Amino acid sequence: MRLMSDTCSEGIREQLFSLDDIPGVLWTPEHAAGTRPLILMGHGGGRHKKDPDILVLAHRFVTACDFAVVAVDVPNHGDRPVDPTYDRIATENQARVEAGEELAPLIADFQALVARQTVPEWQAVLDAVQRLAHVGSGPVGYWGVSLGCGLGVPFVAAEPRVRAAVLGLGGAPTLHAAAARITVPVEFLVQWDDERVPREESLALFDAFASTEKSLHANPGKHGDLRGWELDSSVEFFARHLR
Amino acid sequence: MRLMSDTCSEGIREQLFSLDDIPGVLWTPEHAAGTRPLILMGHGGGRHKKDPDILVLAHRFVTACDFAVVAVDVPNHGDRPVDPTYDRIATENQARVEAGEELAPLIADFQALVARQTVPEWQAVLDAVQRLAHVGSGPVGYWGVSLGCGLGVPFVAAEPRVRAAVLGLGGAPTLHAAAARITVPVEFLVQWDDERVPREESLALFDAFASTEKSLHANPGKHGDLRGWELDSSVEFFARHLR
Repeated sequence: MRLMSDTCSEGIREQLFSLDDIPGVLWTPEHAAGTRPLILMGHGGGRHKKDPDILVLAHRFVTACDFAVVAVDVPNHGDRPVDPTYDRIATENQARVEAGEELAPLIADFQALVARQTVPEWQAVLDAVQRLAHVGSGPVGYWGVSLGCGLGVPFVAAEPRVRAAVLGLGGAPTLHAAAARITVPVEFLVQWDDERVPREESLALFDAFASTEKSLHANPGKHGDLRGWELDSSVEFFARHLR
Repeated sequence: MRLMSDTCSEGIREQLFSLDDIPGVLWTPEHAAGTRPLILMGHGGGRHKKDPDILVLAHRFVTACDFAVVAVDVPNHGDRPVDPTYDRIATENQARVEAGEELAPLIADFQALVARQTVPEWQAVLDAVQRLAHVGSGPVGYWGVSLGCGLGVPFVAAEPRVRAAVLGLGGAPTLHAAAARITVPVEFLVQWDDERVPREESLALFDAFASTEKSLHANPGKHGDLRGWELDSSVEFFARHLR
């Protein structure tokens, strides 16, 4: 783990790092010492580790809960180089959609492929970050919607350190098998008028989680219109389960 | 409005009253003076104004938010006398169910009948309670699930003083017309395995609210198994909308 920068602002310490060429960022309370809960945040498609949506919520977890938060760029996103394989598949998919194929199953298959890379990457990130004295081996939470859900479901299913997860804005049937292996508390966000995820698929994915503690939160609006109070709810959720 | 008792315990003042023979209870912070938000709570079927579920949440609204809370017995419940008409219909309905009719539509029609009495009763209760100096004419919220939803939807639709409502555990199609007149923020609670309310009917009632701010919260469990964190969420919801 190579540290690129280490700065402080408004009570929050931000450390940019690189782990085996994966660019990442770690946020902790300014004077943090000792073990604390850690939240891994997965960004959306076309976004990156310091996307404003990620940043705002990460800062809330740090200031409201005294947690550590880590985010890394997904392959082909942010500061990562273009991956020729993923690029080729994306181009092929675009051609297949133009030829009349449905987009959603293509995206689902693509995300399943990327997840085979990100699950071990994110596990390595947890390993590295939890070795830091101001993070330590506390309970872990995962927050990710949209692409962050498509990659998050297989990650949460595979990683026993994760004790609670906020997921949503996703419903690919290809995720059901992994969802059925998830038993930790889940808060699942649905946009009631999501133009990308059919409502029935969202409800079916919620159904698929094996967790006995799972809450579906649905709000009117399209895919990108997540309401601010759901972020408050995420803070409450992790405070309840990770403290 | 006739005051029957006035006691204090653990920072909460409880006043039992009777208004035109409707037995009611008002909770306020012990030393409350001046106008504050008021929440009207509607109890469930077979329950009463001081049911433990009502009591626990009412106390939360008072202690966490400094609100006033009022609850009254629904006709044929609690300290109210047996109403021969309602009693006769209930007996007839039981016979019809035994003869093979579906229960849910009979309950829906019955609740619609009772609502024609409770809507004006609850409006009179608001009038009376808001005349008290330690309550005053602040914003009003409504909280009610199950029977409290069946009676609450027509009440919230009819009463412009209500600025936000928590409803749920109900889905009667007979409520859709009133729901379509509701435009205030709604938090709508669904039990995912509700043995009394079909899931599709719950989702359809959520759809029917005209509110641009509405959240559906679904949790696994049967009709009576509402999770404790949904009560926390109700407190947050009213704090956000009535303060």
